Amino acid sequence: MSDDGDESDAQSLGITKRKEYETGEWYAEVVQKADLADYAPMGGFIVVKPRGYALWEQVQENLDSWFKATGVENAYFPMMIPESYLERESDIVEGFDPEVAWVTHGGHEELEERLAVRPTSESIITPYMAEWTRSHRDLPLRLNQWCSVVRWEATDTKPFFRTKEFLWQEGHTAHESEADAWEETMTRLEQYNRLYEDVLAMPTTLGRKPDHDKFPGGETTTTVEALMPDGKSLQAGTSHYLGTGFAEAYDLTYRDEDEEEQVCHTTSWGLSWRALGGLIMTHSDDQGLVLPPTVAPEQVVIVPIWQEDTREEVLEYCEQLHAELDADGVRVVLDDRDERNPGFKFNEWELKGTPVRIEVGPNEVDDEEITLVHRPDGETETAAREDLTDATEDALDTVYAKLYADAEANLEENVREAHGRGEILGTLGQHGGYVKTGWCGEEACETEIKDQIAAEIVMLPLEEDTDPVHETCGVCGEDATETAFFAKNY
Amino acid sequence: MSDDGDESDAQSLGITKRKEYETGEWYAEVVQKADLADYAPMGGFIVVKPRGYALWEQVQENLDSWFKATGVENAYFPMMIPESYLERESDIVEGFDPEVAWVTHGGHEELEERLAVRPTSESIITPYMAEWTRSHRDLPLRLNQWCSVVRWEATDTKPFFRTKEFLWQEGHTAHESEADAWEETMTRLEQYNRLYEDVLAMPTTLGRKPDHDKFPGGETTTTVEALMPDGKSLQAGTSHYLGTGFAEAYDLTYRDEDEEEQVCHTTSWGLSWRALGGLIMTHSDDQGLVLPPTVAPEQVVIVPIWQEDTREEVLEYCEQLHAELDADGVRVVLDDRDERNPGFKFNEWELKGTPVRIEVGPNEVDDEEITLVHRPDGETETAAREDLTDATEDALDTVYAKLYADAEANLEENVREAHGRGEILGTLGQHGGYVKTGWCGEEACETEIKDQIAAEIVMLPLEEDTDPVHETCGVCGEDATETAFFAKNY
Ligand SMILES: [Zn+2]
Ligand SMILES: [Zn+2]
Repeated sequence: MSDDGDESDAQSLGITKRKEYETGEWYAEVVQKADLADYAPMGGFIVVKPRGYALWEQVQENLDSWFKATGVENAYFPMMIPESYLERESDIVEGFDPEVAWVTHGGHEELEERLAVRPTSESIITPYMAEWTRSHRDLPLRLNQWCSVVRWEATDTKPFFRTKEFLWQEGHTAHESEADAWEETMTRLEQYNRLYEDVLAMPTTLGRKPDHDKFPGGETTTTVEALMPDGKSLQAGTSHYLGTGFAEAYDLTYRDEDEEEQVCHTTSWGLSWRALGGLIMTHSDDQGLVLPPTVAPEQVVIVPIWQEDTREEVLEYCEQLHAELDADGVRVVLDDRDERNPGFKFNEWELKGTPVRIEVGPNEVDDEEITLVHRPDGETETAAREDLTDATEDALDTVYAKLYADAEANLEENVREAHGRGEILGTLGQHGGYVKTGWCGEEACETEIKDQIAAEIVMLPLEEDTDPVHETCGVCGEDATETAFFAKNY
Repeated sequence: MSDDGDESDAQSLGITKRKEYETGEWYAEVVQKADLADYAPMGGFIVVKPRGYALWEQVQENLDSWFKATGVENAYFPMMIPESYLERESDIVEGFDPEVAWVTHGGHEELEERLAVRPTSESIITPYMAEWTRSHRDLPLRLNQWCSVVRWEATDTKPFFRTKEFLWQEGHTAHESEADAWEETMTRLEQYNRLYEDVLAMPTTLGRKPDHDKFPGGETTTTVEALMPDGKSLQAGTSHYLGTGFAEAYDLTYRDEDEEEQVCHTTSWGLSWRALGGLIMTHSDDQGLVLPPTVAPEQVVIVPIWQEDTREEVLEYCEQLHAELDADGVRVVLDDRDERNPGFKFNEWELKGTPVRIEVGPNEVDDEEITLVHRPDGETETAAREDLTDATEDALDTVYAKLYADAEANLEENVREAHGRGEILGTLGQHGGYVKTGWCGEEACETEIKDQIAAEIVMLPLEEDTDPVHETCGVCGEDATETAFFAKNY
């Protein structure tokens, strides 16, 4: 077994930044060295590499199957939207106009009307929903598309978290009543929550955005918020009850059972590749990427450890393990490269985030055992060879549970109550996380905190809050009508 | 059972144009009335409705699984390409510049460098392949992305066949040698062929494009051509051997086993939603859409036929059939709507292209039988109730075979030999289809035919043609070096 080049390669593999002290730089390093994404030549754009895209495919497969099982159909609408269509709903044009990328020329000709590269598609989808909806029998109408959108924000590129172009799904639905539309809004929020809880090993908090931060033109924006290990909250998916505003702007009406013309209630909901940013940020560590087994491209890597005289028996044993796990549906890879030593392989698969490593040396062969190592904490266990698949699946489940428990502990430790400007700012400054306080409902009270510490109200309790945590606003002291969750955010 | 509204609805459902005489108008009507697509507000763009998108998902699922089984990884590259990147390969900028949509503004700011909405992605993907490729051990590198592209052609919109924006997949690969890259080129061409043969029930012909019509900057463009029932050839997928031109332009090199720097050989290959245009055009008829069971959203519709006194028994029987077929994995729907009569339902499911209809009346119940009707030709067969799934699957297979056989007969009848301008033009004018003739290799000889009848050389035999069909060029009479297939095309 040759070590040629291992040392210099190992150096370029290693993560040099520390998650705890240089979170931003560490994150950027993990994304690049774990082969998830690269920076594009134009600021704000990224290239998603195969190992990053495979994670997005897992998100897609899960959500898409849940959407379809609950009455959603996929469709595809143009990536360009005429300016006049955007302008038909005044809030949406005000909300998105500063961020729109404009196509002005086709070939050598200037276009008569410039076209927006879609920042979101309400203004092109709603008019078609209007054309396709005549009677209450056509409702509910539930459409979804997987596509990319562009928002020309002039901030630093942070792969997956903040990019000018991003991949997402956007769902758009129309209903007969407010109740139906609200049920839809919550169905999708719950599906997003399920993605985080059951697939990405991330506990989340469901809430509403304050009115001044809701979707432009909508009634209520609900949000799935995930607390990152650096104490910032990630808006990890949003589901909007849009009321009748968009339906009125785009003539989306239906004839009810009494043949009366009625206006639809609509919703829209979206989840983007930010989910991957949250996933990477939440679980990964100073050795590199950490992935839950649910989404890991390889759930298990088998690494043989041999000397010349044991090579044959160790490799043969490994090949049998590989064949058996593979037949049992485990995503497993056997790293039998001759030119790399086991230590190098350990590091490389740790960097890639493979949840469980099976080590096999001559001892394992002799004792008919396997040694399993959990990626997140290096815990080692042995199991009998005959229990291979069961022991492996147990180890994968344990890894998932560990990742979830760690993230949950972070969330639980970081919800604090505070009242009064000084206490709010002090608590946010010292600990990050969520600070719960009474709120009078005025945006000015949020602005005061935001100006000083760049934290904002990231959510309100999901249900209208009849009994706020404090009787008075934590900022101005007036009567409180809500409990606000302040946090720094992405 | 009420007939209210059936008559007017039936009228709006019916196809009014005839495939044989008004092919273009008939096609547009089928696409819209079978709920596949709608026209967008901007000329050249379409909206793909759920029933159209479901067909695209079938194409995706098949190709994607074959790609992955043969070493291809999915990735995602930016939808915008800086102008300076496009310009690094001079042929590609010349080839696509007239068709590029340009983004010139982001928000309220004019961009320093305008960005092309990708017309194809060689010029953004190849530089990254160069960054990721150091040694021969990194090769072959096989990337694919599913995305949309924009080409600003100023021609009439024909849904799926010709649109300014279209969905496609584009594969990009790098290899050590010409032989490897050629093998890749052919692997993808064969997979496209398999899609048509085994999934879309369309026989195709494999060939090469003449040099003057190959991919800009490439060496050889291979093509899958499908003959449409109106006698025009559809370029239904292309796979390009690009030689070393792109690799040189974008510095895509590798160190070989002797540590020598070598230039890669690259390929690219793409298949778009034109495949759906070909599918619809090939099989559909004056009653509407016809789909092979492989891609039909509903493979079987069960239509109950009852009077008041037989309603209960007929419906119960139908529900049992539905449950059994569903459990056996057949995509089946029971049309038990009360407000529509059987005749209306027959028409509607015929319009939608459902391959097999199972009719159940009191006689079927009494005799413990089922009646199966094949969509494409109305052929009716009866089977014993106990043979339900077998009989249904046989019927589905038979429908596939019928569709394929019809398309194959059309292809076989429409390959003709001709020699001399008059005979070539006469044969193309009278019959359409392919005209085989000797060709000297000069574009001028194609131009002469094209100017008179808008037919061109759509392909040459796949293998270098050592023995052309004629000794002399069918147009100019000089020595022939190739056999050319002339045809009108889409
Ligand atoms: Zn206040
Ligand atoms: Zn000639």
